[in-house]
Amino acid sequence: VQRFLVTRLGEDWIFLVLLGITMALVSWTMDYASAKSLQAYKWIHGELRGNIPLQYLAWVSYPLIFILFSSLFCHLVSPQAIGSGIPELKTILRGVVLKEYLTLKAFVAKVIGLTAALGSGMPVGKEGPFVHIASICAAVLSRFMSFFSGVYQNPYCYTDILTVGCAVGVGCCFGTPLGGVLFSIEVTSTYFAVRNYWRGYFAATFSAFIFRVLSVFNKDAVTITALFRTNFRMDFPFDLQELPAFAIIGISCGFLGAFFVYLNRHVVLFMRRPNAMTRFLTKHRLLFPAVVTLVIATLTFPPGFGQFMAGELMPRECINSLFDNFTWTKISGSPPPVGLGRSAAWLHPDVSVFIILLLFLLMKVCGCWAVCVCASAFGRLVGEIMATLFPHGIVFDGILYRIIPGGYAVIGAAALTGAVTHTVSTAVICFELTGQISHILPMMVAVILANMVAQGLQPSLYDSIIQVKKLPYLPELGFGHMSQYNIFVEDIMVTKVNFISSQSTYREVKLLLDSSSLKSIPLVDSKESMILLGSIDRLELLALCDWWLSPERRLLMQVRSTVLSAGIQCLIWESFAFVDEEEEEDGEKGSPVQEERNGPLPPPKPQEPSSNHTAPVPGELRGLHNSEYIFSFFFFFFFFWTVIQSSIKAWEEAEMDKPMEIDEIRVDPSPFQLVERTSLHKTHTLFSLLGLSHAYVTSIGKLVGVVALKELQKAIEGSTRSGVRLRPPLASFRDISNHNSVSKPPPSSPAAPSSPTSTSPPSALTAPHSVCVHFLILVLPHLLLIFCFIVFHI
Amino acid sequence: VQRFLVTRLGEDWIFLVLLGITMALVSWTMDYASAKSLQAYKWIHGELRGNIPLQYLAWVSYPLIFILFSSLFCHLVSPQAIGSGIPELKTILRGVVLKEYLTLKAFVAKVIGLTAALGSGMPVGKEGPFVHIASICAAVLSRFMSFFSGVYQNPYCYTDILTVGCAVGVGCCFGTPLGGVLFSIEVTSTYFAVRNYWRGYFAATFSAFIFRVLSVFNKDAVTITALFRTNFRMDFPFDLQELPAFAIIGISCGFLGAFFVYLNRHVVLFMRRPNAMTRFLTKHRLLFPAVVTLVIATLTFPPGFGQFMAGELMPRECINSLFDNFTWTKISGSPPPVGLGRSAAWLHPDVSVFIILLLFLLMKVCGCWAVCVCASAFGRLVGEIMATLFPHGIVFDGILYRIIPGGYAVIGAAALTGAVTHTVSTAVICFELTGQISHILPMMVAVILANMVAQGLQPSLYDSIIQVKKLPYLPELGFGHMSQYNIFVEDIMVTKVNFISSQSTYREVKLLLDSSSLKSIPLVDSKESMILLGSIDRLELLALCDWWLSPERRLLMQVRSTVLSAGIQCLIWESFAFVDEEEEEDGEKGSPVQEERNGPLPPPKPQEPSSNHTAPVPGELRGLHNSEYIFSFFFFFFFFWTVIQSSIKAWEEAEMDKPMEIDEIRVDPSPFQLVERTSLHKTHTLFSLLGLSHAYVTSIGKLVGVVALKELQKAIEGSTRSGVRLRPPLASFRDISNHNSVSKPPPSSPAAPSSPTSTSPPSALTAPHSVCVHFLILVLPHLLLIFCFIVFHI
Repeated sequence: VQRFLVTRLGEDWIFLVLLGITMALVSWTMDYASAKSLQAYKWIHGELRGNIPLQYLAWVSYPLIFILFSSLFCHLVSPQAIGSGIPELKTILRGVVLKEYLTLKAFVAKVIGLTAALGSGMPVGKEGPFVHIASICAAVLSRFMSFFSGVYQNPYCYTDILTVGCAVGVGCCFGTPLGGVLFSIEVTSTYFAVRNYWRGYFAATFSAFIFRVLSVFNKDAVTITALFRTNFRMDFPFDLQELPAFAIIGISCGFLGAFFVYLNRHVVLFMRRPNAMTRFLTKHRLLFPAVVTLVIATLTFPPGFGQFMAGELMPRECINSLFDNFTWTKISGSPPPVGLGRSAAWLHPDVSVFIILLLFLLMKVCGCWAVCVCASAFGRLVGEIMATLFPHGIVFDGILYRIIPGGYAVIGAAALTGAVTHTVSTAVICFELTGQISHILPMMVAVILANMVAQGLQPSLYDSIIQVKKLPYLPELGFGHMSQYNIFVEDIMVTKVNFISSQSTYREVKLLLDSSSLKSIPLVDSKESMILLGSIDRLELLALCDWWLSPERRLLMQVRSTVLSAGIQCLIWESFAFVDEEEEEDGEKGSPVQEERNGPLPPPKPQEPSSNHTAPVPGELRGLHNSEYIFSFFFFFFFFWTVIQSSIKAWEEAEMDKPMEIDEIRVDPSPFQLVERTSLHKTHTLFSLLGLSHAYVTSIGKLVGVVALKELQKAIEGSTRSGVRLRPPLASFRDISNHNSVSKPPPSSPAAPSSPTSTSPPSALTAPHSVCVHFLILVLPHLLLIFCFIVFHI
Repeated sequence: VQRFLVTRLGEDWIFLVLLGITMALVSWTMDYASAKSLQAYKWIHGELRGNIPLQYLAWVSYPLIFILFSSLFCHLVSPQAIGSGIPELKTILRGVVLKEYLTLKAFVAKVIGLTAALGSGMPVGKEGPFVHIASICAAVLSRFMSFFSGVYQNPYCYTDILTVGCAVGVGCCFGTPLGGVLFSIEVTSTYFAVRNYWRGYFAATFSAFIFRVLSVFNKDAVTITALFRTNFRMDFPFDLQELPAFAIIGISCGFLGAFFVYLNRHVVLFMRRPNAMTRFLTKHRLLFPAVVTLVIATLTFPPGFGQFMAGELMPRECINSLFDNFTWTKISGSPPPVGLGRSAAWLHPDVSVFIILLLFLLMKVCGCWAVCVCASAFGRLVGEIMATLFPHGIVFDGILYRIIPGGYAVIGAAALTGAVTHTVSTAVICFELTGQISHILPMMVAVILANMVAQGLQPSLYDSIIQVKKLPYLPELGFGHMSQYNIFVEDIMVTKVNFISSQSTYREVKLLLDSSSLKSIPLVDSKESMILLGSIDRLELLALCDWWLSPERRLLMQVRSTVLSAGIQCLIWESFAFVDEEEEEDGEKGSPVQEERNGPLPPPKPQEPSSNHTAPVPGELRGLHNSEYIFSFFFFFFFFWTVIQSSIKAWEEAEMDKPMEIDEIRVDPSPFQLVERTSLHKTHTLFSLLGLSHAYVTSIGKLVGVVALKELQKAIEGSTRSGVRLRPPLASFRDISNHNSVSKPPPSSPAAPSSPTSTSPPSALTAPHSVCVHFLILVLPHLLLIFCFIVFHI
């Protein structure tokens, strides 16, 4: 019965349910804590009304404390928790192992840091870090589940588990199961197993369900509805004549998104360059976030500049008010109608709504979530302009329809986030967040236009971060370029391959190992035939060479030869028989592990790095310990005088020239092979499908070259010797929009290769550089602000 | 300039736009035509009011003519157009080539047939055939586009093109771009390239947009809104206490769906069994659809039985009225409120709404679209029951909320179609169709529950059809069964491999070709070493053998030897030099095609089946035509007396024992290889990722076995000699629900292997067997009907 229960508990759906519940609880708790914190913040601010200096001090110091705590906590507990986490996850799902990224420590650091950052009222994105949190949760849970079922220990399961983790992360962040699954797929994968769809939906729905039910139990909501529910009219959501306006929003969002990614990368690259300022910032890690927080808080201080940019609204309230049903330009003069609520913050008695929206827009270009806020503001701006242009609405069929600026805000939000992340599923997330799908067609049109423009100009934000952080990646192949079928592996492969033949001597192997840093080395039959037999791990070879020249082996060899010459043969024969038996056993044990390599996702097993070193030591040595040890010890003293120091050197030299014993080491018998005429398209497909890092090129069994990720990357980006130049997807739009003078910098920009954590991130959870962008952009509104101030008070 | 224009026109996005426009036009035209036809149908019915016999005649004969025309047309033009087409497309995307499925002829047959069937008012599904139509359209368009860009000729593009075609098909069928893309992915793919996401969205959105704009221009609609727009209240769409009811709908829909698939398969298998009735039906192909149409039309005749099952409503009107906002149980007694419209058809003065819904439900279990109608009716039934149980609505927070039975209908529709097709994205389609997303969480819960139950009990409808039609397929691997990692290729591989060594004689090759039907044969170095050098196509070998024993070659050889003996050497040497040159050229020309095999999707190029036969004939022969032909002809007569009939036999025998000339034929140098310890999970992944049909198993270069799709299929389904038994995904639920006594029949059921078109399909476009189910089920309501009649009139 117990065994039955244990296997039942190891079932897949239990894992999914557990993951869903855990993440829903985490998400809800974080939301609850940060909401309480924000409440306290506003309460303090309200209590101190009248005393402007004190009010200012409270307004500034409250977020400062939280941000500093969050920063410090992450730095101390787990520096891996810094940053959005999506680029790293994309790399991990690509098959690369990043250490310490999926540990419980990072989980704790990220959860507490994110809660503090959200609670500070600063515009910080939640869904990026949440993807990371959910993935850690999935990884940790799978380790726990392996107690019940061995499946979870299998490295091939890892991708399946992490993919579901990502889906749950986005899904339970806002209670959007559909959009969450789609977004996580678009952002993290290149090829996707459809069976994981189902699992993602299951876990994400469960998670979103619990997340929303918790808020019902907490009396936050009457029933389960959308998080940012809108109330647009449904019988006539928009007119066809409004479509050009939607298209304009889409295209401008595309340009904005591309510009954002461009700026982001350049600011980060600038920060990485070693100069006096960055050195100073690296030394005082906490200074930078503190200064940024200070500046933001000062600017949004409601009685100060904040009154011109709706500074008193917290990020969530912003979104809600931007999506509302009223047309602000119409209200601004007259007394506010009933039910306006927080939107009143946008209406300044003296300043036009447009200016406020514009200022707000310039303020909020930071972090991914803030991108959404910013885009809503932009959309709202266009909507309000439309409402001003057509003050009486649009006449159709004799009936007058008002324009709804809130709809424009929703579309703007979806289009800009779509442009920055290069995804279409932001539209789905928006539908789920607002609870209305009536704007589906204009929104899809806007998102697709934004994507076209942004993809033509820049890589996505996450790809850009991956490039900047110099993580291994494979660029996407565009569709429809003939050249990807005309370029073959033989054009891009490296023909000078380092290899080992079965006749190689130890000297050659040693030389090879010293001269290169390849992780695995191909083994060929002989130098003449070059028939590929397999590949050997670098560690195996190192261990073999070390052992071959080790003092133990030398002594053993001397013992043997001396014993033989001394004529005590009978004893030795007995012990040798024993040794041979052990050798056979050892060989058998080794084989199950041996041939597991070469396939989709070969993640090195980090749990046994030491055994890798010791395992290949041939059985001969181990036999020594049993019976021969006493003998060798005895003879060691007896024949000591024969071993003079100079003879050791001579022995080593002689041994180095002996051929290597191939039978003693593990050979991966089928490394991934391509033929010379494999097209670039197919190579790219295989590399991204199977997560390969390199492949050997063979011609009827003969090794003729090798292709690694680097060569492929170069070929796609157009810097190979054969003059290949493949343009990125949708590059035709890029040509059109070149007048924009935004040119993509070459990936090998002259940034100094500093460590990824060398810049001091401002808050633990936005991408570390995005706040730098923020910082840069803060100069603009400041100037504009003063300008406006002067203009309006004259 | 012209070249620039041509390449521009070959761009990917132009293809997508063209595809979108074409499909939107096709879809809209079909809708328009069938709507007009239905209008005429109703008009005739209305005009003849009062004259019951004449009215009946018109009611019955109208659909009869349309269905017979549609049936006949498809049979005559293209029999491949029969059936839903999704199973076939799934097989094509798997890498198998089905001939004649993607031709213009099938397109015409399907479009006209479907229009006629839709116009007949019979419950026929639109989206299944539409996927097929769109795929044909994409395939034809890509052939057209290859005029501008060579990319479209590449066979690897094919999958990309067809995937987008499927997405557009579903998307423009109802104007649901999001759901269309997701549904087509879930239904057709196993692994999906994320870059096709974007392309699918682009084309589907464009298509849906045009489709909806056309109806606006046609004044069918004021603006672009959802097709089956609902108007549920949004502030409080449902209460948490209603969730159990939603869950019940989900679970029962799961059982219903599984039962539907089960019934479907068994009826088809029964129809395939050769007996007197099926033989009769096969002979009179048109009889079966005619009878079915007659019976349906008779039953739905509004003044007759039709009044008890809302017979006068056309399928689309049904859905619209089922989704409406009124609670029918409340209305039925009192006078109908304003705005009830067509829902009035459901309210019979004497009979309860429940009975009508129940009857309607039993009527409509046919085709996939009809599944949707049926499920809506079921959901509505549950909703009405709920409304009766809680007549005053649900009290929450002191406010009374009415129950909306329409919401239940929507959820039921999504859950049942989801259960039958094993997809989650039906929920998305429902959101888009109704234009409301407020019920997202209960709908997702219901759909997922329905999927869990249905997946545990039965394969999906499409997989079931694939199995019944005996198309090649690969079963899905469940997640989390340890055994898939413990079973290795060595357990399932076939060790007795037919092979050719480089020393093989022609006799051996001939024997091998006669004894087996393998498509490609492995080539090894020698029988002793067994080192795999590559694989050879069957056609190549056949051509080589044929040529080796051909009279031409015999004569050539004799000519040569005779000429040599005659001493006219100088002449021959000249011509030989010529021949050698040609041989080299030929070898070079052959090579680009040569090594294109072995990778994802190797679809044979149907355009050059003949060249396959002629190409491998070595250059020697071709040289013959040039200069030696005159010689040979001359010597043929001169030495005729030396060639006696018996010597031919002897010559052939002698030639048969010569070793084969490997250099003369094309060898695929890297057929797909696995090692013995590759796990079943990895093998499955590779097979489904790369669309392999077989793979060789090697051990350090030595060929030790072969694994084909069949072995893998057997291993997964649990009938291998090693006693492996992998249960299907979610089988734990299957164990639980075994009391249902629905047991999955073994795939090798004793159905006679008749040809796929042997059963006579009733309408050209529903799956041919689904109407058989219909027929079977028709007996039930008939009896019930009479029973009810008696009960209610006593």
